[in-house]
Amino acid sequence: MTYCVGLKLNAGLVLLSDTRTNAGLDNIACYRKMFFFEQLGERAIVVMTAGSLSVTQTTLARLTEAIHDEMADETTSIMKAQTMLQVATIIGDTLSRTRREIAEQCRDLRQQASASMIVAGQRCGGDMRMFLIYPEGNFIEATDDTPFLQIGEHKYGKPILDRVVTPATSLADAQKAVLLSMDSTLRSNLSVGMPLDLAIIERDACAVTSRRRILDGDPDFARMSAAWSAALRESFVNISI
Amino acid sequence: MTYCVGLKLNAGLVLLSDTRTNAGLDNIACYRKMFFFEQLGERAIVVMTAGSLSVTQTTLARLTEAIHDEMADETTSIMKAQTMLQVATIIGDTLSRTRREIAEQCRDLRQQASASMIVAGQRCGGDMRMFLIYPEGNFIEATDDTPFLQIGEHKYGKPILDRVVTPATSLADAQKAVLLSMDSTLRSNLSVGMPLDLAIIERDACAVTSRRRILDGDPDFARMSAAWSAALRESFVNISI
Repeated sequence: MTYCVGLKLNAGLVLLSDTRTNAGLDNIACYRKMFFFEQLGERAIVVMTAGSLSVTQTTLARLTEAIHDEMADETTSIMKAQTMLQVATIIGDTLSRTRREIAEQCRDLRQQASASMIVAGQRCGGDMRMFLIYPEGNFIEATDDTPFLQIGEHKYGKPILDRVVTPATSLADAQKAVLLSMDSTLRSNLSVGMPLDLAIIERDACAVTSRRRILDGDPDFARMSAAWSAALRESFVNISI
Repeated sequence: MTYCVGLKLNAGLVLLSDTRTNAGLDNIACYRKMFFFEQLGERAIVVMTAGSLSVTQTTLARLTEAIHDEMADETTSIMKAQTMLQVATIIGDTLSRTRREIAEQCRDLRQQASASMIVAGQRCGGDMRMFLIYPEGNFIEATDDTPFLQIGEHKYGKPILDRVVTPATSLADAQKAVLLSMDSTLRSNLSVGMPLDLAIIERDACAVTSRRRILDGDPDFARMSAAWSAALRESFVNISI
């Protein structure tokens, strides 16, 4: 399983992913699920992935290959695409084609090989945009009404986002919100696990302005998690029925 | 969808269910999902249901018919069963048989007709017990390590239970915990809805010592829900990153 969450705020894009991958319950590994495509000041794109590792890795490999292909143009390379919408379309098409091919290979296994992605970024002169790309290649976009998108194990971490995130949320509060959302998910689903990758793309920077790997035992994260638990328990005690 | 939760505490059993039933998104109705089987001082049993309404209603109708059957004995009537384990076995068998029959009827529709139940109670001289009965008729039991069971839309409401419920939790705190667990679920899943049914079986009373229907707009529930939201937001603000 996986949990990835992205916020699209007035101040910028805030993205968080875990790194746990499992094939069954007895085969657990650590794989990065957050990928950066950046040309400083010109464009910054972050892709987060959930689902079958063979689908997501092959999709990313093909996207990267297209970027380095000298024949690539704006319809095939996400570093040449004119708009974030075109970026989402290229990624959706690549994901959909890869998923279909692998599903065909796995047909005899009766196993689902599927994946979804969150794509967020900004191109110089364009708007910040964030998309959730479905396995079939179609996508939806974050809006002011719903400024966050989630993939993977999304339910445990949704209540906190519903309560505190609006487009006006500051980048500092947004980091707190996604980390607490992840904290609830880590507690309830063992197949979501540390370390975490956190990235921020500030508005109009057209660059990944902050990226941080949060390791198991990170003192700041542990302190925040403990403080949140204590605050919840105290709030619980103080509420009268 | 549905959300039902039961706690088995040292002080007694606390049970809460919603009442919303839907066939698709455009056909929503209100049906009780909590059922009482009681002979004061001798036994008290509460059954909560989730899943296909035709399966749960037919199962309950058959259990009730068996109770009123003069030929019924301890292996067919839950009011004559010697132990709560036997009660769970009778309900599991009836649920499994009903589900199989209805699934067979629905075969051409390629629709799943399934259901699960929580059964909690105590017989005079026996222990309080609480079971989660699966569609196939097998079941698991609440223990001191995991003193709560949930059926239906269980994820949104689980974090609060994980954090505050232990076997030593008081009945007052337990009511708060299940109501806040339901509150998180109501906010996040529209197919779980008011009114709510809340019941308590105090230890060794062998009676349903409290039952309450909480209607939409109930001032106590609304106040508690608002206070919890405010407390969460305040806790969020006070935590430093």
